[in-house]
Amino acid sequence: MISAKDEEMKKVVLPEKLEFGKLFTPHMFEMDYDENLGGWLEPKIVDFANLSMHPASMVFHYGLEIFEGLKAYKQIDGKIALFRPEKNFERLNRSAARLSMPQVDIDLALQFLNELILIDKDWIPTKENYSLYIRPLLIATDPILGVRPATKFKLLFILSPVGPYYPEGFRPIAISATDKYVRAVRKGIGECKTGGNYAASLLAQKEARARGYSQVLWLDAIEQKYIEEVGTMNLFIRFKNEIVTSPLTGSILPGVTRDAVITILKEWNYNIVERRVLIEEVYTEYEKGNLIEIFGTGTAAVIASVNKLEFNDRIIDFQTEEAGELASRLYKEITGIQFGKIEDTHDWIRIVE
Amino acid sequence: MISAKDEEMKKVVLPEKLEFGKLFTPHMFEMDYDENLGGWLEPKIVDFANLSMHPASMVFHYGLEIFEGLKAYKQIDGKIALFRPEKNFERLNRSAARLSMPQVDIDLALQFLNELILIDKDWIPTKENYSLYIRPLLIATDPILGVRPATKFKLLFILSPVGPYYPEGFRPIAISATDKYVRAVRKGIGECKTGGNYAASLLAQKEARARGYSQVLWLDAIEQKYIEEVGTMNLFIRFKNEIVTSPLTGSILPGVTRDAVITILKEWNYNIVERRVLIEEVYTEYEKGNLIEIFGTGTAAVIASVNKLEFNDRIIDFQTEEAGELASRLYKEITGIQFGKIEDTHDWIRIVE
Repeated sequence: MISAKDEEMKKVVLPEKLEFGKLFTPHMFEMDYDENLGGWLEPKIVDFANLSMHPASMVFHYGLEIFEGLKAYKQIDGKIALFRPEKNFERLNRSAARLSMPQVDIDLALQFLNELILIDKDWIPTKENYSLYIRPLLIATDPILGVRPATKFKLLFILSPVGPYYPEGFRPIAISATDKYVRAVRKGIGECKTGGNYAASLLAQKEARARGYSQVLWLDAIEQKYIEEVGTMNLFIRFKNEIVTSPLTGSILPGVTRDAVITILKEWNYNIVERRVLIEEVYTEYEKGNLIEIFGTGTAAVIASVNKLEFNDRIIDFQTEEAGELASRLYKEITGIQFGKIEDTHDWIRIVE
Repeated sequence: MISAKDEEMKKVVLPEKLEFGKLFTPHMFEMDYDENLGGWLEPKIVDFANLSMHPASMVFHYGLEIFEGLKAYKQIDGKIALFRPEKNFERLNRSAARLSMPQVDIDLALQFLNELILIDKDWIPTKENYSLYIRPLLIATDPILGVRPATKFKLLFILSPVGPYYPEGFRPIAISATDKYVRAVRKGIGECKTGGNYAASLLAQKEARARGYSQVLWLDAIEQKYIEEVGTMNLFIRFKNEIVTSPLTGSILPGVTRDAVITILKEWNYNIVERRVLIEEVYTEYEKGNLIEIFGTGTAAVIASVNKLEFNDRIIDFQTEEAGELASRLYKEITGIQFGKIEDTHDWIRIVE
């Protein structure tokens, strides 16, 4: 049946404009878990279709949902590549542990992800810097309203052909720091990729957008003066003598791109330091002329140069519509590795075959 | 069609043992919202059935889910009563505002809730202190992976005949305070009835249960030394000269039962004070012999007497299997009002007719 579909898929013509995460491929991976039936049940690749969900399913009530985001790239030699996919499944398992959800067998997950991508391979965009976004999702399905750890789950992989995450493309974005709202606190779920963190952030994002800022820069929850992360990205600040990014405090997401950027910057002999950074420090260094550039890192955006940072009406404005020099170099390097234009010296690439 | 069903329902025989939130009545209320279609669409009462959900529905990924919990009581004169239902919908709307979700028309919601309860009225248990638990639920249904405020939603009311929330019944429960995990922080979503708060709490609950404690007592996220709330209840501490409960700090749920208990305690001339309470204070007052009792308040449990409190291996143990004197009196008063055995002098009861 799937091979018949393959024939159809050869005719796949993707729309010129791909809004992020709106179009999905014809298949998905699905595997159920039932504690009372011994754990994970039969893994299967099925037609992409709606899920039939009991209205009391725990995912609807108690936020028992974790996800990941990674991409498949059509490389210049026609091969299909993943970028450090095991890192995403390791993080999924850390999120699962924190939320009392079951561990996923990473080898099995990667094997079925491989198979799914091959079935829907004609849906991988070939346009420069376009890719196939992969969304693994684990949700709790127990149809019961008692507040307790779940015993039934559904693991899904869905695939979406995507263009650049920001409508701005690789042009710089403006961000706004807030101390009006808090996203997450250490010992909570801030380092997990789980719904609650996003639910906490959307109102701030909406208010920031109304004032012309694409994203919110979150400060630490306790003192509300240290930089943590941007809604969908980790943040790097390039001072004259140092590039800084927040350490993994327990309330920020340990980004896969963040990790790759730190590795690359070290190789490039930059003085990259993971340390707590006062938002105040960014402003005083800016005033002293020591702030060179700001950029975010994340799977969806890869690298996003920041040309404007606002916090309580104080504005840092690089007054340029060009991405920063280092942000551009990093974007070129990482996408170069992902698309097979630059040699993968780190063993980051996994070929889907 | 519904009246035909009514005939069947006269034969309703509820199981002897009702596990909380496991059995549902044959109907539910459903109303969709679409920003692009002008807002709320047709409200309808339908057969209880699974929902057909797109795998990318925002509720699965970004925690855009808020809910309420209230109960319908079969009173001793046969009337059906709700307890301050408008309070629940006011709180739902406050949760909605924080999560950038749409406001619900409270009069319309109450009117349809009324109608739904009447249709499934034979499912209201008549056993003493049993009731029909009502779960309003609002979830985001946009089938899109971009992180942004949602534009499509589904409002549901589902009904579940329930017995006592705790397997212990009205016997006292043991609770354990933690500074290993944090539930919520001010300026976050802790005062909203939303999934993320529960997702953050289940691992701690699981670990507490493994050590023999029913529930977790959460401390404030900042200093981790002030008492905030129990997983599904607000907490009251009765000292010799004062009854204290945490003020609404922004990180705890503003409970409807909490509010009723404060009102009643004032009328009973207790010195009830909303103030921050150090967990340390509870232990020192206990050692001085000034701690009389501890109890929790919540819609599901009404009042739960606490006979044991543990925090980092320090144990307060009232060494009794009897509920505390004031907890028992409050339980009797509130359930008395709810079941029509005690006059409703506060205008808290709404008759469903």
